[in-house]
Amino acid sequence: MTKVTIVEEIMSANDRLAEQNRALLDAHGVFAINVMASPGAGKTSLILRTITAVAPHLTLGVIEGDTAPVTIDADKVLAAGMPAVQINTGGSCHLDAAMLAKALPQLPLADLDLLVVENVGNLVCPAGFKLGAHANIVVASVPEGDDKPYKYPGIYRGIDALILNKTDLLPYVDFNIPYFRQGIELLNSEAAFFPLSCKTGEGFAAWIEWLLAKVGVMRDA
Amino acid sequence: MTKVTIVEEIMSANDRLAEQNRALLDAHGVFAINVMASPGAGKTSLILRTITAVAPHLTLGVIEGDTAPVTIDADKVLAAGMPAVQINTGGSCHLDAAMLAKALPQLPLADLDLLVVENVGNLVCPAGFKLGAHANIVVASVPEGDDKPYKYPGIYRGIDALILNKTDLLPYVDFNIPYFRQGIELLNSEAAFFPLSCKTGEGFAAWIEWLLAKVGVMRDA
Repeated sequence: MTKVTIVEEIMSANDRLAEQNRALLDAHGVFAINVMASPGAGKTSLILRTITAVAPHLTLGVIEGDTAPVTIDADKVLAAGMPAVQINTGGSCHLDAAMLAKALPQLPLADLDLLVVENVGNLVCPAGFKLGAHANIVVASVPEGDDKPYKYPGIYRGIDALILNKTDLLPYVDFNIPYFRQGIELLNSEAAFFPLSCKTGEGFAAWIEWLLAKVGVMRDA
Repeated sequence: MTKVTIVEEIMSANDRLAEQNRALLDAHGVFAINVMASPGAGKTSLILRTITAVAPHLTLGVIEGDTAPVTIDADKVLAAGMPAVQINTGGSCHLDAAMLAKALPQLPLADLDLLVVENVGNLVCPAGFKLGAHANIVVASVPEGDDKPYKYPGIYRGIDALILNKTDLLPYVDFNIPYFRQGIELLNSEAAFFPLSCKTGEGFAAWIEWLLAKVGVMRDA
């Protein structure tokens, strides 16, 4: 009983901070997305290709969540000419709203239209912690296998878009797209679905169109 | 300070239970391996192919850790003719020694030579919780990318063997094996390294030879 109470208090504190993050983002007209995935599904590749695609239309900043003090991903974003802040979680398996609250003031929020938050690579823990983002995205990938929605259901509930990356590997991997989608439908029939390849660019335009519409909707509101 | 104390107490309790698990396994002459990996790296494929390879030499049981009450992996093991027990972690991101302690009596330990424990697919959390296994194994996979040791260092420290699965995809993916191995060497220069493909069987014999030697060493001790 004590354990439950502690967890509830932590979650409640996190939710309050997430609301504050959202308010700060809204005050600056920044649309934020929280990008979650298994390690190696292609979050950083997605972000880098998204930067290139949206750069003519809007200004973008990136927050990189890492469990270790390496700046591999943040360096790639900086090299692409976009402001990036790294959050080192110190071994923790997910970002939380407090970490984001510390990182946000380090970005030029007044100049940004879109903020991309790359969560720690993990299909379990990030699902439990709201950050205050306007949209939650999961990047799945073909070589991970088509059974992941059945095995890791928590992460797919409540997300706004599901990207299936590495479709260029479909010829070399056993992956049943209808079985995968059926698993998602059972958990979340609302999420937009974008099969694509960050390597070849196939399918990427639909994702960018969706993203730009989302950002536009908020900016016009 | 309070938080640190609580975490230390949890870890200490886990370590004590892990020692009890080890003693129970030793009492029955069972060699146990804890198989950890990112979701979709191929833990279940490795286990199924390992069952086929070792079945002529020894008797094997499997414990499947899952975050959800699905029995996809356990069913595959049962279909392969081996005793399997599923641990549903109820959403938790890793197995711990207490979960294993509950599962062990459900297996015919007296009949087993080898116990394979498939941990929850996660490159962060399982590293922190000893189970009592005799060997800890990480299954990496080619499409995950060669930078994972740099980004998720915790899981590679202290492991006994590292498997690099899905080498059949090397022609289609940018994966620098020397860069990957260099990252591992910095963390753990002792781990045995087995590049292999569970799909084609390439490289599998070396892993089986290592595993049989490990089991043999303990049984003769």
